[in-house]
Amino acid sequence: MDLFEKLLANRGPLGSHSHYAHGYFAFPKLEGEISPRMKFRGKEVLNWSLNNYLGLANHPEVRKADADAAAEFGMALPMGARIMSGNSTNHEQLEKELADFVQKEDAFLLNFGYQGVVSIIDAVVDRHDVIVYDAESHACIIDGVRLHQGKRFVYQHNNIESLEKQLQRASRLVAETGGAILVITEGVFGMSGNLGKLREVVALKEKFEFRLLVDDAHGFGTMGETGAGTGEHLGIQDGIDIYFSTFAKSMASIGAFVASNQQVIEYLRYNMRSQTFAKSLPMTLVVGALKRLELLRTQPELKDNLWKIVEALQAGLREKGFNIGTTESPVTPVLLNGQISDATALTLDLRENYSIFCSIVVYPVVPKDVIMLRLIPTAIHTLEDVAETIAAFEAISVKLDKGLYTKSSVAV
Amino acid sequence: MDLFEKLLANRGPLGSHSHYAHGYFAFPKLEGEISPRMKFRGKEVLNWSLNNYLGLANHPEVRKADADAAAEFGMALPMGARIMSGNSTNHEQLEKELADFVQKEDAFLLNFGYQGVVSIIDAVVDRHDVIVYDAESHACIIDGVRLHQGKRFVYQHNNIESLEKQLQRASRLVAETGGAILVITEGVFGMSGNLGKLREVVALKEKFEFRLLVDDAHGFGTMGETGAGTGEHLGIQDGIDIYFSTFAKSMASIGAFVASNQQVIEYLRYNMRSQTFAKSLPMTLVVGALKRLELLRTQPELKDNLWKIVEALQAGLREKGFNIGTTESPVTPVLLNGQISDATALTLDLRENYSIFCSIVVYPVVPKDVIMLRLIPTAIHTLEDVAETIAAFEAISVKLDKGLYTKSSVAV
Repeated sequence: MDLFEKLLANRGPLGSHSHYAHGYFAFPKLEGEISPRMKFRGKEVLNWSLNNYLGLANHPEVRKADADAAAEFGMALPMGARIMSGNSTNHEQLEKELADFVQKEDAFLLNFGYQGVVSIIDAVVDRHDVIVYDAESHACIIDGVRLHQGKRFVYQHNNIESLEKQLQRASRLVAETGGAILVITEGVFGMSGNLGKLREVVALKEKFEFRLLVDDAHGFGTMGETGAGTGEHLGIQDGIDIYFSTFAKSMASIGAFVASNQQVIEYLRYNMRSQTFAKSLPMTLVVGALKRLELLRTQPELKDNLWKIVEALQAGLREKGFNIGTTESPVTPVLLNGQISDATALTLDLRENYSIFCSIVVYPVVPKDVIMLRLIPTAIHTLEDVAETIAAFEAISVKLDKGLYTKSSVAV
Repeated sequence: MDLFEKLLANRGPLGSHSHYAHGYFAFPKLEGEISPRMKFRGKEVLNWSLNNYLGLANHPEVRKADADAAAEFGMALPMGARIMSGNSTNHEQLEKELADFVQKEDAFLLNFGYQGVVSIIDAVVDRHDVIVYDAESHACIIDGVRLHQGKRFVYQHNNIESLEKQLQRASRLVAETGGAILVITEGVFGMSGNLGKLREVVALKEKFEFRLLVDDAHGFGTMGETGAGTGEHLGIQDGIDIYFSTFAKSMASIGAFVASNQQVIEYLRYNMRSQTFAKSLPMTLVVGALKRLELLRTQPELKDNLWKIVEALQAGLREKGFNIGTTESPVTPVLLNGQISDATALTLDLRENYSIFCSIVVYPVVPKDVIMLRLIPTAIHTLEDVAETIAAFEAISVKLDKGLYTKSSVAV
């Protein structure tokens, strides 16, 4: 059989919608400076779809730091993998500051978050070990787990009883194999906004021997008194053995880091395949991350503003009877009842007639009869933005309940 | 057992040398602007370790484009995955120009090369399919193959007889499973400088049904009449079904792309996990890549200069009796006989006393009694650099043969 023929016979869950979705529902272009007001197809929209939690993307000091660094270093420096020829004092300085900030002994800077997580998992386990992970883990965790040659047990999302059962199974198994257990979960789940039950997970260390890896992509900068993340928020940062976050959310950049004790970080420096065999994070991004981290630490009003908007948005939606699930973080899902066809018509209406742009999530990420609109509040949204959005949601919700989106034609 | 104790008991092939290697043999800092003359530990060295083949890293037009783009866009834009909120007309323009340049119908821009390759492989095969790949494939190919749930058969490096045998096995197997065959190799092998035997591989399509994926990281920009890569050089670009290259070598940046026919690229756009679930390539890098591609296309003298240096270096080394293996590309390995202990002393001598900085490759990448020094010539090296380097290599080679490095103390 021809590989290409086979591929094209099944275009995948997203690809099968591409004939009408491309450029509108998928691969849309948001134009202009990153802010709550951007252009979509030439028209201004109120945008709730970017993880620019603290508003750093377009902060004047960040913009200046980015421009100055690019002027000084360009985008090529350094070349080669960190271990070969891509190291610099700035890379080391950023690692030191990140480690201090998240209260760990040391940190290792990563060239990209996705491949970073995959390789952390790959580096720390071997076939004798067992991975126990949350069922709603992000794709990068799943793909790291997929590389694992030993057993992996999944526990029901945030279900500690289920986790405990899997830890019992895992413990019996490693007693035979001589391996060890790695538990993986997230600080903030990016779809539901749920926090990982880290306190309860860490408490299980009294009963089971395991190490805990937490992906805190959405928690870093948004959670905890100083913004050091979900572990700080829940008072169990010490219980997180390997802490990961990306620069793609609060830090409004690319790249990532992993923090742990000094020896484990040294191990990771020398054993992460995506870092040993791929280029170092460019200097301009490193210098830009130093500035972002400085602002994140020294301007607590950014996080305060974020939470002011989060609270207004979430309280407002709840007050109007919307189901926003169980979020405890800035991530704000709005769960509506409807089919995929309703979802497309509703999104079209929301964008075209109410000028509101947010992500829409449908089956298979949520059940078949659920439409999830996901709102990402940021420090640079206003209370007026919140009011306008809640009013629009009320209007579309009435239309949805009346069945007005069913059978409405979708032409974009 | 405790996972961390287990980890630290075996620090890995590179980590086990970290106590003396760190900062010198591993994670060295090359400082100053990217060029053949950079600083290492405060001293100027003649540097042959960066894949800046065409000298674009520090080309004034590239530097200006990078600085201007960063001033205009910052480093945050766009945010989110390409499919969600990270698309732009610049991304689409670059895809179009890359596709045209490598003579394919369409291209998909990738946020990072390593995870790009892993996800291409992951996206195109399922458990019924068989992957047949070259034994010396880069780590990113190996890791993509590791994700594969079906069979994989490795063939001896560039050995067409071995490939044919594996294709026979694979063909029998897919006749049973109903799957298809994907062959993976490289355009230019980054360690040996060997070209993949693409002409012979493509010729096997007459006997077997398979699709061919080529990672041309080191070939793009350096090989072929227009610089379109190893497929162009060998006259079989049409036979490459999926063409991949990174921006981390000739393009002196980060990011990557994959090119194929229009339908396959559409499939990849919607089905590559590292792209759907991770941030888009930043706008500044996209705009910078457009400029780099323009120079690569319009300034053939860059490639001419590169090859002038390559030929002088390789002919000079061969003339002096050095074994440079079977390279047919700019990658220039120098194979010496010696142990790892010799290698460290020799490298120290080369860096400290001859001020020459190049990569050193030891067991397990090469056999135990081989030391490989790898030189990467670029368009901005000079013939004087070549002469100086050959003289230094003659000197250290004499010392190595006399056994002067054995037992010499390594203190850095």
